[in-house]
Amino acid sequence: MLKVAILGGSGYTGGELLRILLQHPHIKVTAITSERLSCSSVSDTFLHSRDSALKFEKLNISKLKSKADLFFLCLPHKTSQSIVAKLSKAGKKVIDLSADFRLKSAKTYQDWYATRHIYPALLKKAVYGLPEIHREEISNASIIANPGCYPTSAILALAPVIGKKFVDTDSIVIDSKSGVSGAGRNPAQPFMFCEVNDSVKAYALTTHRHTPEIEQELSGISNTKLKVIFSPHLMPMDRGILSTTYVSLKGSTQLASIQKMYRDYYKNEPFVRVLGDGVYPATKSVKGTNYCDISVFLDKRKPGPKKLIIVSVIDNLLKGASSQAVQNMNIMYGFDETTGLKTPALFP
Amino acid sequence: MLKVAILGGSGYTGGELLRILLQHPHIKVTAITSERLSCSSVSDTFLHSRDSALKFEKLNISKLKSKADLFFLCLPHKTSQSIVAKLSKAGKKVIDLSADFRLKSAKTYQDWYATRHIYPALLKKAVYGLPEIHREEISNASIIANPGCYPTSAILALAPVIGKKFVDTDSIVIDSKSGVSGAGRNPAQPFMFCEVNDSVKAYALTTHRHTPEIEQELSGISNTKLKVIFSPHLMPMDRGILSTTYVSLKGSTQLASIQKMYRDYYKNEPFVRVLGDGVYPATKSVKGTNYCDISVFLDKRKPGPKKLIIVSVIDNLLKGASSQAVQNMNIMYGFDETTGLKTPALFP
Amino acid sequence: MLKVAILGGSGYTGGELLRILLQHPHIKVTAITSERLSCSSVSDTFLHSRDSALKFEKLNISKLKSKADLFFLCLPHKTSQSIVAKLSKAGKKVIDLSADFRLKSAKTYQDWYATRHIYPALLKKAVYGLPEIHREEISNASIIANPGCYPTSAILALAPVIGKKFVDTDSIVIDSKSGVSGAGRNPAQPFMFCEVNDSVKAYALTTHRHTPEIEQELSGISNTKLKVIFSPHLMPMDRGILSTTYVSLKGSTQLASIQKMYRDYYKNEPFVRVLGDGVYPATKSVKGTNYCDISVFLDKRKPGPKKLIIVSVIDNLLKGASSQAVQNMNIMYGFDETTGLKTPALFP
Amino acid sequence: MLKVAILGGSGYTGGELLRILLQHPHIKVTAITSERLSCSSVSDTFLHSRDSALKFEKLNISKLKSKADLFFLCLPHKTSQSIVAKLSKAGKKVIDLSADFRLKSAKTYQDWYATRHIYPALLKKAVYGLPEIHREEISNASIIANPGCYPTSAILALAPVIGKKFVDTDSIVIDSKSGVSGAGRNPAQPFMFCEVNDSVKAYALTTHRHTPEIEQELSGISNTKLKVIFSPHLMPMDRGILSTTYVSLKGSTQLASIQKMYRDYYKNEPFVRVLGDGVYPATKSVKGTNYCDISVFLDKRKPGPKKLIIVSVIDNLLKGASSQAVQNMNIMYGFDETTGLKTPALFP
Repeated sequence: MLKVAILGGSGYTGGELLRILLQHPHIKVTAITSERLSCSSVSDTFLHSRDSALKFEKLNISKLKSKADLFFLCLPHKTSQSIVAKLSKAGKKVIDLSADFRLKSAKTYQDWYATRHIYPALLKKAVYGLPEIHREEISNASIIANPGCYPTSAILALAPVIGKKFVDTDSIVIDSKSGVSGAGRNPAQPFMFCEVNDSVKAYALTTHRHTPEIEQELSGISNTKLKVIFSPHLMPMDRGILSTTYVSLKGSTQLASIQKMYRDYYKNEPFVRVLGDGVYPATKSVKGTNYCDISVFLDKRKPGPKKLIIVSVIDNLLKGASSQAVQNMNIMYGFDETTGLKTPALFP
Repeated sequence: MLKVAILGGSGYTGGELLRILLQHPHIKVTAITSERLSCSSVSDTFLHSRDSALKFEKLNISKLKSKADLFFLCLPHKTSQSIVAKLSKAGKKVIDLSADFRLKSAKTYQDWYATRHIYPALLKKAVYGLPEIHREEISNASIIANPGCYPTSAILALAPVIGKKFVDTDSIVIDSKSGVSGAGRNPAQPFMFCEVNDSVKAYALTTHRHTPEIEQELSGISNTKLKVIFSPHLMPMDRGILSTTYVSLKGSTQLASIQKMYRDYYKNEPFVRVLGDGVYPATKSVKGTNYCDISVFLDKRKPGPKKLIIVSVIDNLLKGASSQAVQNMNIMYGFDETTGLKTPALFP
Repeated sequence: MLKVAILGGSGYTGGELLRILLQHPHIKVTAITSERLSCSSVSDTFLHSRDSALKFEKLNISKLKSKADLFFLCLPHKTSQSIVAKLSKAGKKVIDLSADFRLKSAKTYQDWYATRHIYPALLKKAVYGLPEIHREEISNASIIANPGCYPTSAILALAPVIGKKFVDTDSIVIDSKSGVSGAGRNPAQPFMFCEVNDSVKAYALTTHRHTPEIEQELSGISNTKLKVIFSPHLMPMDRGILSTTYVSLKGSTQLASIQKMYRDYYKNEPFVRVLGDGVYPATKSVKGTNYCDISVFLDKRKPGPKKLIIVSVIDNLLKGASSQAVQNMNIMYGFDETTGLKTPALFP
Repeated sequence: MLKVAILGGSGYTGGELLRILLQHPHIKVTAITSERLSCSSVSDTFLHSRDSALKFEKLNISKLKSKADLFFLCLPHKTSQSIVAKLSKAGKKVIDLSADFRLKSAKTYQDWYATRHIYPALLKKAVYGLPEIHREEISNASIIANPGCYPTSAILALAPVIGKKFVDTDSIVIDSKSGVSGAGRNPAQPFMFCEVNDSVKAYALTTHRHTPEIEQELSGISNTKLKVIFSPHLMPMDRGILSTTYVSLKGSTQLASIQKMYRDYYKNEPFVRVLGDGVYPATKSVKGTNYCDISVFLDKRKPGPKKLIIVSVIDNLLKGASSQAVQNMNIMYGFDETTGLKTPALFP
């Protein structure tokens, strides 16, 4: 049994990690921290864990480091950095769900997060934990930078074609719609029920911090230096992200051949499903799962350069956070990659 | 008092028309039809009209035509055509909320609606009832083609800039998010509560019938023959459309100067509000109103051609249908244009 | 024009008051306070008031008292007391939306609110502002204690029969279902979107502070000393309260005769609608209005004492708070009682 | 591997059965029927079953009966009867999710369902499938009448105390709040998104068909002939039932001792959780699970007979239908009772 600890475990992603790990056959959760809830039982906070005897404790690295081999960090960015550094120094493995190790460039990090990165050396060690793109490196990693929710939906949407010659890498628009749980569990007026219910709004247009993360990965896959337009929207639903991605094509590639590229690219992937011609993904179809469903459309009507439209959906708390972290763990430790992650979606 | 009748009045747009017209100081509603509910009181179907003695009756034009001077038609497309023709022949004025007279070209109509237009001559007479664009013609019209909900949000978003030289008319992407009431009130599985709630999905990508309507009007304003990418999405909310519109700029126009164009363009419009720099419109802010709120953003970071991002919101049943119809009526009859339409939004 | 001020105006009830008063033909709103938002424009907080030049200011009674004749207080209980005292001393009229002057007994206040009432003398002066019960006193009052939302729905449900001999006053159970806006606008985890959405829960069973208020008024009407069981529930919706009230009957009174009592009791009431036999009220039918819809059912099947079941619905922010406050104002100042309150419900 | 078939499998309960059974280690689903969808793949209708090769087929008993040993029936009441009779005659076991075999009395069935029961002899053979009450008989049954959703929540709420002397069996009021999935998947206007969203309403007061089912079981447990008041309400949520049950006490039993009765009664039950003092159950805490959470409150304040208030929550599609059916199957076939049913709730 692998001993794992969850640091910062009282929020939504911590709760989802706990739920999955308590059911995982190869794992023993030995500690979970929360400053605010320390000493209380996790079963009081998360009913799904009511049979667990675990109690929240304060984050004390010197005490915790002997308790586990692998640490999941659900801490705020900036806070996460120094904890990763300490654990890494102590020879522990880390899966960091914050943004602190996702960007390879310390300068880009500073530009977007308005704070200097203190451990640029560790940035090099960290692997961006999107299994469909970096499975090999993940299997050898000791620090995983678990991807952001929006980037997961956007990168998986574009990966099969972004490096192709017929794709105009300068034309990418990603219009994303997210459930409210992406904003976390801390009380804040904009995410109160009555502010969000029965309404939709855009936010952070041209300035959202997931932008450089999407650009870094798509640039890597396509071997270009590309930029994207990324527009997040807040939706009246608990979970789920649907990204509608637009990209211009240069030639006259047919839809059928593009659909085949997607099917081929993901044919061995256990958690990416390329839907049939004309089938529309809904966030409800992946709620509670580690799946990413993708469907591809082509504007056949416009003269000149065609637009390819890719619709991708994930559960932002799962494939966009906690279950992807467990998928990464499974890869790192040689477990079957789908262990603990096969739950089908609940419908309706 | 102007006598008006509502044909096809048992759905959501009919109900909203009735609600507004019963409060309108210059109007007497003399008849309302519904095949299904004929003989029952409107107050049983619409609690907002409980003090009204009106009963639904069957659609019998020879009987109805003497009852009113102006007819609002909330009938399905194709059905609407012949009723408009009969009323027009009888010298009556018509505001048609169906799609039957929105497209100037009978061929385009046939291409998108899969049925031949029987009254191409009337197409020429009909005026597209978007007051911000066609106020003058509306004031002299006897047939108004009341705009679709999505087109209203999209055309108002682009009108101030679409004819400008710095705008690439070949690059328009309109990503729209709509509440469920846009699908009407007839029972259908995809719009049942449990299918829609807590989820989002795209639909009709590249094939939605509002596409040619948007193209016709934007082509008219810009004096070009343009095409657009239009992507509708279904959201778990009753009312509201938010359109996020992307368009490439050719030069280096500044955001401030574009914002000024919007403010200038709409400065005398009673129902279009251009929001301040960085303010995000929400559908909740226009729910229950005839307003369109617009905010403009510029991607400053991308090298090469900048993207302009316009976010516009309306209430799909009001500015996107029934209150816009009343605004058109006010213009046609020389009433103050805002009569009966000044209700502020309910929040939350 | 009557000059009025709103103290504590940045929450939901303050916003609704402002919306109604800005449209009211006899009113000029001269001041609105908010400690947190002072100096900012109300139009930034409430889009429905965007044409208003009002700015929030700090609550400074010596400065404010010359500005208005009537003060609406949307302050927390306990805070409200001393402000009411000061305004009263200055000869101003007050409509207090807090709980501070609703309970006639200072001891009951202390028992339920865990703080001593500082102005017991003013308790005697204050009138409980439920027009259907206390219209006469309201018209002469200088301090109105505006009723709680739950009590409004419960008292109106029982008033027509509670004093009758065939009613067992010892058997009242009120099972209420409320939208989330009743909890106010201050950030708190239990009212965050993801905690409330797609779920229902009970809370404060046997301990909710609206209990003594319901008991005081029903005791008054029935001339007995009665107690009730009151069970509030939190629902995933913005607005609305539906109360299902159960009361045992002693004799064999027929449903038709009870329905007649309700119709007779409310026959001159502009804002209470007794629905027809077998018609179910929905909160959606009164959303955005000052109406209370009531329907009455009788369990005909049980042997022995029959149960009468009364279903009543209101908009908790309106008839349960702000529009009821305006109705009280209309009565106090001799305006037509329905002025500014005739808006029909929005549907859907 | 036990071979099972699902008859009437295209609705919500059929879908949930399929989801659970496809994951069950001892089960092979050999057939699923749907008249409307026959020949189409189940994976097109239910994404959670996308790896399944099953296709819907028409309901043809002579063809189906050789395919399986156990049949789950998700057919409308009245239709179900004759299918059960045929399968029973062929020596097959049946778990019937319709209401056809829940009422022991053919007369009561006729009174409430307005149709004569054709197979009264089979009524005697059928066992009411609530494991917490009838586990022993279920283990030997060949026909299971799977309980209704509301009755499951109400019977489990009262079972621990209903037979006790201190309980007044003539005073039961059950106020239930249900999600919309209880109404099934067939299109109908009252369950369209815009009719239900952001609203609550009562329905079928004093006339709901689950009433006699609750009465039969509570009468059986308490060895009296009791009647109840049962009031269902429709809530804007997908799944879940919360029942608030009120019952008068005759003596002065203390809350702590009642809570102990509940804990003792359910101490060996894997799927009933009695929550701690003052903890409120929410439907969200049992969504996607087979659990029933119960909490008990006592009105300490009223003079005279106290009211006991029991709050119980279930997932109406699971413990209220499909997972309870699987629990019954596990008992009938000697599998561990929790097999396939241990999924914890998803939160949020």
